[in-house]
Amino acid sequence: MLLNCDLGESFGAWTMGMDEQVMPYIDQANIACGFHAGDPMTMHKTVRLALAHGVTLGAHPAYPDLQGFGRRSIAFSTEEISALIRYQVGALCEIAASEGGSLRYVKPHGALYNDMMRNEAILDAVLVAVQSSPQPLALMAMTTADNQPLKTACHKHGVALMLEAFADRAYDQNGYIVARSQPGAVHKDQQIIVEQAKNLSEGKTIRTVDGTQLHLEADTLCVHGDNADSVAAVKAIRKALGARG
Amino acid sequence: MLLNCDLGESFGAWTMGMDEQVMPYIDQANIACGFHAGDPMTMHKTVRLALAHGVTLGAHPAYPDLQGFGRRSIAFSTEEISALIRYQVGALCEIAASEGGSLRYVKPHGALYNDMMRNEAILDAVLVAVQSSPQPLALMAMTTADNQPLKTACHKHGVALMLEAFADRAYDQNGYIVARSQPGAVHKDQQIIVEQAKNLSEGKTIRTVDGTQLHLEADTLCVHGDNADSVAAVKAIRKALGARG
Amino acid sequence: MLLNCDLGESFGAWTMGMDEQVMPYIDQANIACGFHAGDPMTMHKTVRLALAHGVTLGAHPAYPDLQGFGRRSIAFSTEEISALIRYQVGALCEIAASEGGSLRYVKPHGALYNDMMRNEAILDAVLVAVQSSPQPLALMAMTTADNQPLKTACHKHGVALMLEAFADRAYDQNGYIVARSQPGAVHKDQQIIVEQAKNLSEGKTIRTVDGTQLHLEADTLCVHGDNADSVAAVKAIRKALGARG
Amino acid sequence: MLLNCDLGESFGAWTMGMDEQVMPYIDQANIACGFHAGDPMTMHKTVRLALAHGVTLGAHPAYPDLQGFGRRSIAFSTEEISALIRYQVGALCEIAASEGGSLRYVKPHGALYNDMMRNEAILDAVLVAVQSSPQPLALMAMTTADNQPLKTACHKHGVALMLEAFADRAYDQNGYIVARSQPGAVHKDQQIIVEQAKNLSEGKTIRTVDGTQLHLEADTLCVHGDNADSVAAVKAIRKALGARG
Repeated sequence: MLLNCDLGESFGAWTMGMDEQVMPYIDQANIACGFHAGDPMTMHKTVRLALAHGVTLGAHPAYPDLQGFGRRSIAFSTEEISALIRYQVGALCEIAASEGGSLRYVKPHGALYNDMMRNEAILDAVLVAVQSSPQPLALMAMTTADNQPLKTACHKHGVALMLEAFADRAYDQNGYIVARSQPGAVHKDQQIIVEQAKNLSEGKTIRTVDGTQLHLEADTLCVHGDNADSVAAVKAIRKALGARG
Repeated sequence: MLLNCDLGESFGAWTMGMDEQVMPYIDQANIACGFHAGDPMTMHKTVRLALAHGVTLGAHPAYPDLQGFGRRSIAFSTEEISALIRYQVGALCEIAASEGGSLRYVKPHGALYNDMMRNEAILDAVLVAVQSSPQPLALMAMTTADNQPLKTACHKHGVALMLEAFADRAYDQNGYIVARSQPGAVHKDQQIIVEQAKNLSEGKTIRTVDGTQLHLEADTLCVHGDNADSVAAVKAIRKALGARG
Repeated sequence: MLLNCDLGESFGAWTMGMDEQVMPYIDQANIACGFHAGDPMTMHKTVRLALAHGVTLGAHPAYPDLQGFGRRSIAFSTEEISALIRYQVGALCEIAASEGGSLRYVKPHGALYNDMMRNEAILDAVLVAVQSSPQPLALMAMTTADNQPLKTACHKHGVALMLEAFADRAYDQNGYIVARSQPGAVHKDQQIIVEQAKNLSEGKTIRTVDGTQLHLEADTLCVHGDNADSVAAVKAIRKALGARG
Repeated sequence: MLLNCDLGESFGAWTMGMDEQVMPYIDQANIACGFHAGDPMTMHKTVRLALAHGVTLGAHPAYPDLQGFGRRSIAFSTEEISALIRYQVGALCEIAASEGGSLRYVKPHGALYNDMMRNEAILDAVLVAVQSSPQPLALMAMTTADNQPLKTACHKHGVALMLEAFADRAYDQNGYIVARSQPGAVHKDQQIIVEQAKNLSEGKTIRTVDGTQLHLEADTLCVHGDNADSVAAVKAIRKALGARG
């Protein structure tokens, strides 16, 4: 089980995230590409930091909405979505290459990620962009109780799929994460977070908000480096799962 | 002697340039990368058009200034300049790859081009970015009476140099183009334009505004597709120089 | 019956619309405020041109989406919508004041206009912004067969309502304009356009695509200055309706 | 002696500055207008906070450069500078009005402020914009040993001048602040800061880095709310100068 984290989310004079604190404990860095966060300098710095820690590089493209941090859905055509993903992936790819690194996967951000999970045509547009890259890139997407549609779409485009789960989010019985607006949606207790991480990692079931037991297929856990608490949780998860491979 | 042209300068709903009319007559397309003009969709369309006509692809990166069309100098650090060039080159590169094409050169645009020609540190920053690309890219820069500094800098970075001259611009005796604010700076007479193109192409001297004869080394001529007159001039130059190689 | 037209839609180096040709024939200029089109210089120039022709100034605010020309819906909260309208209205207002002019109305643009017509909460957010302006501003909105909801909302906020109709668009029997994707949605024949303008102006019914007769309340007709044909249509409508008041 | 502070410098999801902590101790809020920092929602929130504390509102316009935080000089024409100041001032003005407030002054930000202090034509362009506002606005500018040029320019345009000094910056004998790159440019010792504030406030001389005594005319002191230390310094200055008027 790998650990992935959204990074490089600073922008110009504005700092966001404790990238330096969390980088030593993760396996995969989802790096913002300038459309919702990040800028060419921040991207360079983040790539350099990731490479220094042997962390795998991934692109974290988004709708063009700096002010909304990519969290607002924007009605793009599928052709436009493929184009804006290629634009961002290529930008990061070139910067990574200048530091001797290369990208391994794409994880769409925010509203684009949600839209892709909900809308087949958008998932298709994302895969069209991922597939056309000169280097082999995987797609990182959210695991649920039924991953068949995701697998089918990825297979169709010849794109490898990496399923991610959350250690700090409650799930319902269909394997969807509970909306943040609901009580109990986010686990705050580090022990519960570590427990869920271990269960997901060992292929055991986790307890849903509905009280049922759920099995979730997952290749990677999404962890957070926003603040001291989340970094502490990442360290605890890392310790529980064992050293990086 | 090749012909190069700035293309893909439309943006969203705004159209600029007669790309489809001029493309059949040129050899090299300098494609805007979204910072001064162009957007992911326009970039795709322009790449596709260029490839359909067998035209070589080049990146035309600029300072981030859509409203000023990249014509205003902005005080970036050299590290920032390298980063913003990589960002734009990579974005275009990925889009080109999705259409089966690849970039061959970088020609900075507008104020960035002028700054690079005037300022050694900025030229160096441009070359650092060009050199680090995974694919071998040349730098397209302006020829003058003394190209030694340009050649030395390119040689230092191991970057091939392509020198461009203008068929429709008057030169002074130092091989600098006359500023547009001066009378006679731009040739309007198609016969004079074709004559200058032929002389540059055949290695003959051209007549400067000072009345002297000037020899200018050049690999490519910058032509324009802005309007019907400039497209007509390109056709006339093409006819005078002979069919594309 | 007044004539209103979207103007000031150029951006930086990109020109759009034949503002100088159409301005002498209209009564109200809907001026872009920089979020979907326009920039501070274009706004100045457009205000100056409108004032020179005695044309009333209106703000034409939009979602922040230059690349999409404000035509894409973006999921803003109602509080954000009020704020972004105030931002744009204020910007234009200050520029207008510097030329001795003042704004009289607000007409939202593109996706924001459509969202306002479809969604009560968004209409409310628009009216909250319009109402809070230091100067009395009206709202320009689309007339349909049933304008009661619009009137009720405007009355609630103490905002005057100006209803606009289209001379060049086909209507269905509910007074909605036919979507552009449908055949016959846009009248191309100048005679039909002028006829519809006259009927709307004189309070007579117009013929719908369904073959029925429809009465539409309207204070102003939206005309276009995009190209030579549309400018010719505006002149013909002006002639048919009589000189400006 | 008043205290002014740059505020509202958050942008979208990025937070900057301890606005709520510093607001109770200052007299004048220089509010970012969206070009270098701030956005319509942040502007609203900042206006509301300032009004709740009885703090005077000022506009803090800048060159359009979010990524560079307005710290990079951009080569705008004087006409463009007037236009972009009006745009920003108007935007803030409308938002302030919606909260029942009104602007009293304009303080250009960052590179625009520096350019205005160094370049007469730019100062003139700023004053042209300030003067044309429907409401009487003063200009806030930096005091030096010779304020005559500033006073002459403001007098010419009929604009009131507010001179600002810094309590935490070392001055040279010409009354210019010492560049941050120099040792001793920024006072860190709170006692020295308070001492300099008191001397400036009481019209006494301050000690320059050259060891001379300097008299500086000042109406307001620029203080900072960036971090806990600077907020503590503001409290100490406030205490030393006495309660707000």
